[in-house]
Amino acid sequence: MSSEPRNRQQTLALRKQFIGSSCKLFFPEDPVKIIQAKGQYMYDENGKQYLDCINNVAHVGHCHPEVVKAAHQQNLLLNTNSRYLHDNLVDYAQRLSKTLPEKLCAFYFLNSGSEANDLALRLARQYTKHKDVIVIDHAYHGHLTSLIDISPYKFRNLDGQKEWVHVAPLPDTYRGLYRENHKDPATAYADEVKKLIDKAHQENRKFAALFVESLPSVAGQIIPPSGYFQKVAEHIHKAGGVFIADEIQVGFGRVGKHFWAFQLQGEDFIPDIVTMGKPIGNGHPVACVATTKEIAEAFSATGVEYFNTFGGNPVSCAIGLTVLDIIEKEELQTHALHVGNFFMELLNQQKAKHPLIGDIRGVGLFIGVDLVQDQEKRSPASKEAEFIITRLKEEFIMLSTDGPGRNVLKFKPPLCFNTKDAELVVDKLDTILTELERKKT
Amino acid sequence: MSSEPRNRQQTLALRKQFIGSSCKLFFPEDPVKIIQAKGQYMYDENGKQYLDCINNVAHVGHCHPEVVKAAHQQNLLLNTNSRYLHDNLVDYAQRLSKTLPEKLCAFYFLNSGSEANDLALRLARQYTKHKDVIVIDHAYHGHLTSLIDISPYKFRNLDGQKEWVHVAPLPDTYRGLYRENHKDPATAYADEVKKLIDKAHQENRKFAALFVESLPSVAGQIIPPSGYFQKVAEHIHKAGGVFIADEIQVGFGRVGKHFWAFQLQGEDFIPDIVTMGKPIGNGHPVACVATTKEIAEAFSATGVEYFNTFGGNPVSCAIGLTVLDIIEKEELQTHALHVGNFFMELLNQQKAKHPLIGDIRGVGLFIGVDLVQDQEKRSPASKEAEFIITRLKEEFIMLSTDGPGRNVLKFKPPLCFNTKDAELVVDKLDTILTELERKKT
Repeated sequence: MSSEPRNRQQTLALRKQFIGSSCKLFFPEDPVKIIQAKGQYMYDENGKQYLDCINNVAHVGHCHPEVVKAAHQQNLLLNTNSRYLHDNLVDYAQRLSKTLPEKLCAFYFLNSGSEANDLALRLARQYTKHKDVIVIDHAYHGHLTSLIDISPYKFRNLDGQKEWVHVAPLPDTYRGLYRENHKDPATAYADEVKKLIDKAHQENRKFAALFVESLPSVAGQIIPPSGYFQKVAEHIHKAGGVFIADEIQVGFGRVGKHFWAFQLQGEDFIPDIVTMGKPIGNGHPVACVATTKEIAEAFSATGVEYFNTFGGNPVSCAIGLTVLDIIEKEELQTHALHVGNFFMELLNQQKAKHPLIGDIRGVGLFIGVDLVQDQEKRSPASKEAEFIITRLKEEFIMLSTDGPGRNVLKFKPPLCFNTKDAELVVDKLDTILTELERKKT
Repeated sequence: MSSEPRNRQQTLALRKQFIGSSCKLFFPEDPVKIIQAKGQYMYDENGKQYLDCINNVAHVGHCHPEVVKAAHQQNLLLNTNSRYLHDNLVDYAQRLSKTLPEKLCAFYFLNSGSEANDLALRLARQYTKHKDVIVIDHAYHGHLTSLIDISPYKFRNLDGQKEWVHVAPLPDTYRGLYRENHKDPATAYADEVKKLIDKAHQENRKFAALFVESLPSVAGQIIPPSGYFQKVAEHIHKAGGVFIADEIQVGFGRVGKHFWAFQLQGEDFIPDIVTMGKPIGNGHPVACVATTKEIAEAFSATGVEYFNTFGGNPVSCAIGLTVLDIIEKEELQTHALHVGNFFMELLNQQKAKHPLIGDIRGVGLFIGVDLVQDQEKRSPASKEAEFIITRLKEEFIMLSTDGPGRNVLKFKPPLCFNTKDAELVVDKLDTILTELERKKT
């Protein structure tokens, strides 16, 4: 949009001048300027191609032509609020309902995952008339005031823990309280939630909700043990609260076997509220909350309207519908399963070779490589992880780290990521791990 | 997007089935299905044309071709997050900075006015290390948990007033505490804020912010007396808090004389934080917070990153930049001034004729027609207002009401609204008012 293209330093200087410094760049020491993207590839101002292993928002691929077309066609016709009837809104809700258990039949459309989680909190509180929330350690549910309060990842560094927030241990079977050698980690971790509830009940506190990312992401790409959700759902229901599955990072077929990550827990498990964001519109600001008739009716019983200016507009809905079309037409869920399995196999071969790799965990194209300084102590290899992503960037591969120790390489690429891309990444990773280990000895 | 077009009843039935019932339709008894729009006109499924007097979001006109083109061109190239350098982001921030006092030089981009107001609250609290907020009676600042708390329009019907929220009287010189006959209503209303502060200080409470819509909208299209902002800003500053101007409804040239509505208070007045939404992207979900270097630095001093997944993406910024271009190129600010003045003149002629009209107030294309049952008592003519907007709809004119009595006809059309449109509306209004008054006598 500028009259003449700027070089990287000029853009950076203006960014420092005008953008709040809390907004961070990837690789702040040497940030990348990206001006174009296609599928799983991004291009800098010099035409250099980067393989994108990070961006789960560009779900069906950067700038997917069908998404771009749907946005344009609807933009030409109409973009207004949901106070008028429009087919896109109801088509989209109906279409999403087909991917979910029948019970989840009431939809709200919004502009971001944060807005979705905030509404989920409001719904839960209105339905239960309770206030307290159980969250999982290291969770991140969004950037809003209400969500920082329920995000240990954030509140520990800001205002601290509110009296109505209760933090349950992360069901991490690699580095957590109960590990792979425990005979029933699902029950053991669920019992921890039960203990929290009992303790709070002694203080006469009352629960509105348990908030869980279906696959905890910022916490280090964690796969909760199967059956855990059913058990904690039972506990929170007995306490009068609801189960909220935050699918913002991981929904829409990424996990391969299922469309929603909570379905990994078993066919019998149904959350009371599901929140969706990031991949839902392939980058367009759109988000959704799905819930039950009972919860929706309790919310509307207050008589207070819920109005979201941009939420559910025909353009956002057209884009959302097209993303669903593409997942189906291009069989991206099955693709995620196959490529993910292939990728995991290659990574597991690396694990056998490199002592820095402590754990490989993943489902579909949600994969974590947990780097350790010591295989037994499982102490996070944070510096090494940092070194690896910096080196990979030099090899034109975009990757990032996560986890409290920032030692988990997290893979959540656009779903068009293929086996060749996986081979390339693993090949480069092998080289860099070898370099690193050579230095160490 | 559906295989075959549905009729209005079918769409309505699906809406009832799938959309949370808290999401309300205009004219719920007989809702309108809109499938297309252009400029200030909307079209239903039968091709009927409606004149849009409501939608301030479609700021430069529904489906403005330049906006649609900018979105499409950028969508073809790249839509990713702000962790990479991109010229659109810095160009947009720089461009917005030119419309604002120099002091407001740090920008954050988000997806909705609600997200903007929530961030403003976080900024104010982090900067001041205080918690309490002063809000104006009947204010509405957004649908998020944190904003319902500071919106008397909402919290009175929900969870009630929090102990950290202090409600100042609405500076309404027509129906408020101090009226047009008061010699200095600006000082009188500001003194009410001072009283609130003094009372709270006695209870050892500390102020983070005073939140004000530059022109209170839901409260009934109110024009605060000039000089009021300077005086209350002085009071809140002395109490250690900041002044937040919520420009979400009224910014971007709507008021005609100025680009920002807070500038109506005088050249000397500068808020500490300005929030923007609705019209900023002509319907695309985008929003912005502008603040001072000091506040931005206090926010970043926590070391905690602010990341908004979709906020500041190249598409949203391209659209925002284009909206600014169009306002300039089509001289929409001047146009709003002229058409607004013309419209006000016509309306004032009606006031002389119709006892139902108690007050006409407005600046540019932000106009309120306050209907009263009795000119002296100024009692809200709520039913009559409802009747008028229903009748106007039959005449294919879309208008809505506002104010605590829902008796204020509110005009905030797309800025391309012209003198002919104004003539048409006033003509129809004249007819309906005459009908109504004939019935009464």
